[in-house]
Amino acid sequence: MSDLPTGNAAIGQSGGPTAVINQSLVGVVEGLQKGLVASGTVKQILGMRHGVRGIAKDGGDLVDLTAMPAKTLDVIAQTPSAALGSTRDKPDEEYCAQILHGCRQNNIRYFFYIGGNDSADTCRIVNEKAAEAGYEMRCFHVPKTIDNDLKENDHTPGFASAARFVTLAHMGDALDNASLGGIKINVVMGRQAGFLTAAASLARGCRETDKDAAKRPAPHLIYVPEVPFVMDHFLQDVDRVYSALGRCQIAVSEGIRDADGNEIGPQLMRSGEVDAHGNVQLSGSGALGDGLADAVKKALTPTGGKAPRVRADTFGYLQRCWPATSSIDALEARGVGRHAAKLAADGHAGASITIIRTSNVPGDYRSEFGRADLSAVARHARHMPEDFSDDGNNISAIFYDYCHPLVGELPTFGKL
Amino acid sequence: MSDLPTGNAAIGQSGGPTAVINQSLVGVVEGLQKGLVASGTVKQILGMRHGVRGIAKDGGDLVDLTAMPAKTLDVIAQTPSAALGSTRDKPDEEYCAQILHGCRQNNIRYFFYIGGNDSADTCRIVNEKAAEAGYEMRCFHVPKTIDNDLKENDHTPGFASAARFVTLAHMGDALDNASLGGIKINVVMGRQAGFLTAAASLARGCRETDKDAAKRPAPHLIYVPEVPFVMDHFLQDVDRVYSALGRCQIAVSEGIRDADGNEIGPQLMRSGEVDAHGNVQLSGSGALGDGLADAVKKALTPTGGKAPRVRADTFGYLQRCWPATSSIDALEARGVGRHAAKLAADGHAGASITIIRTSNVPGDYRSEFGRADLSAVARHARHMPEDFSDDGNNISAIFYDYCHPLVGELPTFGKL
Repeated sequence: MSDLPTGNAAIGQSGGPTAVINQSLVGVVEGLQKGLVASGTVKQILGMRHGVRGIAKDGGDLVDLTAMPAKTLDVIAQTPSAALGSTRDKPDEEYCAQILHGCRQNNIRYFFYIGGNDSADTCRIVNEKAAEAGYEMRCFHVPKTIDNDLKENDHTPGFASAARFVTLAHMGDALDNASLGGIKINVVMGRQAGFLTAAASLARGCRETDKDAAKRPAPHLIYVPEVPFVMDHFLQDVDRVYSALGRCQIAVSEGIRDADGNEIGPQLMRSGEVDAHGNVQLSGSGALGDGLADAVKKALTPTGGKAPRVRADTFGYLQRCWPATSSIDALEARGVGRHAAKLAADGHAGASITIIRTSNVPGDYRSEFGRADLSAVARHARHMPEDFSDDGNNISAIFYDYCHPLVGELPTFGKL
Repeated sequence: MSDLPTGNAAIGQSGGPTAVINQSLVGVVEGLQKGLVASGTVKQILGMRHGVRGIAKDGGDLVDLTAMPAKTLDVIAQTPSAALGSTRDKPDEEYCAQILHGCRQNNIRYFFYIGGNDSADTCRIVNEKAAEAGYEMRCFHVPKTIDNDLKENDHTPGFASAARFVTLAHMGDALDNASLGGIKINVVMGRQAGFLTAAASLARGCRETDKDAAKRPAPHLIYVPEVPFVMDHFLQDVDRVYSALGRCQIAVSEGIRDADGNEIGPQLMRSGEVDAHGNVQLSGSGALGDGLADAVKKALTPTGGKAPRVRADTFGYLQRCWPATSSIDALEARGVGRHAAKLAADGHAGASITIIRTSNVPGDYRSEFGRADLSAVARHARHMPEDFSDDGNNISAIFYDYCHPLVGELPTFGKL
């Protein structure tokens, strides 16, 4: 805690957008309006267009949010994706020096960045650079990621809404699959962490499931990056369920990998486009799903017999900005933004905002906001705890208890 | 009109399921319960498992729905996909003889079949076979298809809910695309007819759009099977929008075809799986989207320069059984089922139920149910009227007026 520097605030959004990232943006803005702007400490709230690009480039690309009325902010909050625009830039030392330069030019004393662990790292470096240069600026990281892979957090804003989409999609798709039979593979986002794919298990509507995959409600099989993927076991699993039921619904993370940690996707893909982070592109392409479908078709076609009906859907970008959110997610995303503004007003020198679950009693889920050091969240990725997985091809009741309160009420369906 | 034969009723569901096909099932059942069952003309209402398979096979696979309580029926009605199970079987003459045999064994005098134009054709053949054999049976076709391609109908149950999904998906995805830029291709179901893909245009939130694709709200470009697809024009269109905006959202039907009527999908695909109807598999595979993305990347990468960010999502099966429907669709799907039971009670010898729009005044959309000869609906496919398309790469205001009342209220979003 220390005396509050007087100047302007900058806020930006980074990485893959979510359905509730604008809730966090609005949370910061309204928190500042009622706090540091009202007290005269902050003169202007400046939105950075396309994240740090908006402050790093000459002249800047900034939008004044200082006097934005509550009514307008409410509409923005309910709008999916990043209203300021986002960026995939992962600033290195030099880039961070440019950011600091832009901040000084605009007299930024409070820096808020909404994003994943890369964004926390940007905050950390900029914070350090400012300190080295003797320029007083306070950096706050506001969590966001559908991957749910930030350390120090029970879960992250954006995850619950995407999980709700994945659950609903598997509910509808399971009924579709049951009506016509065959094998259905659904590829879900999640490069390092399986949380989002695991949400498919909520489509079953029950906590406990059988060790025998053929006795589980759909999805019968779920594969996540945390559990080594063995192609032979996968094909045996599918064969077991399909032979017993004439159908099989499978959820699979885009980031499944073998025992050596090598991703399965690129091994099945035709092309291998690499993004700015050196990662092979897995989303926005149906290649992993199609590759798995080909493998299943090949393995399960009897000699001289008919190939089973195998279909693959890659959920792709629909799952992260679907315009119907989990209500808890929307509230919490707003809350982490407000909390960041509050920490700034309270004189904190910088932090990463966190979500802590305080009650998981059924029907009485509660959470509160905390803070962690930027360095504790930056770069690190959280993986699913071991007890969220079961039997190499399933998700446990422990995950159900963890995730169910977050996605909100689900529809109930009938059966003939 | 004639004396009503006494006996049992059979009901089945056929083809690709929809989010509201169980509404039609329940409509028929409750219509019969209150009509021909109450009057003692129909003894049993028998559900055929997996469509005509459930009656054609020895012994049959039938479920008694006669006394099913209204409360149970209501839950079934709100359940996506075909609760009785569905089938892709397209019965030939011999198969239809087996169906008739099953009907005689079970004393079926009223035959209801919910499905597309293939199902209408099954009704037609079975009807004829029964007449030839001097067996009195009345066959009713209840319309269903997300493709919206049945003749004699203003639109068909299942379409509006799928259209709502496609619209919402494009709304969220347009904001996603705007936040990070690049080219986004969305492949929508629709082999012969472009209605469902055209629904992407509702995501714009406005009727009229510019001749210049770069001046339209997203989706900037929309391609349907009814308009010949010219690869060079497509690439020029994308280049025009991307050069102007740094982004481009594209909706494309899985069934787009060239001027000679040859589908583009198979021309870009690795494998060429053929289904029971002799069609190459287009859904449940990301191949068309990936193929178009490859072509765009190749064409738009400057010599020695950086490839643009191009992503493709194939909406696949999610769009047909998404568990949140258009409310008008749900009501009409229930209504066509009830109407079929009513026509049976009124002594009609057989018909295909139709939907007629009676008012399109904004805020006062109305429809009623009619009937057509089975032969007028059987096999024929309806295509989009010419005036639903514009400029070779766009959808018109006339389509907007047609489709908007069906999908129901859409969310409103903000912009910074």
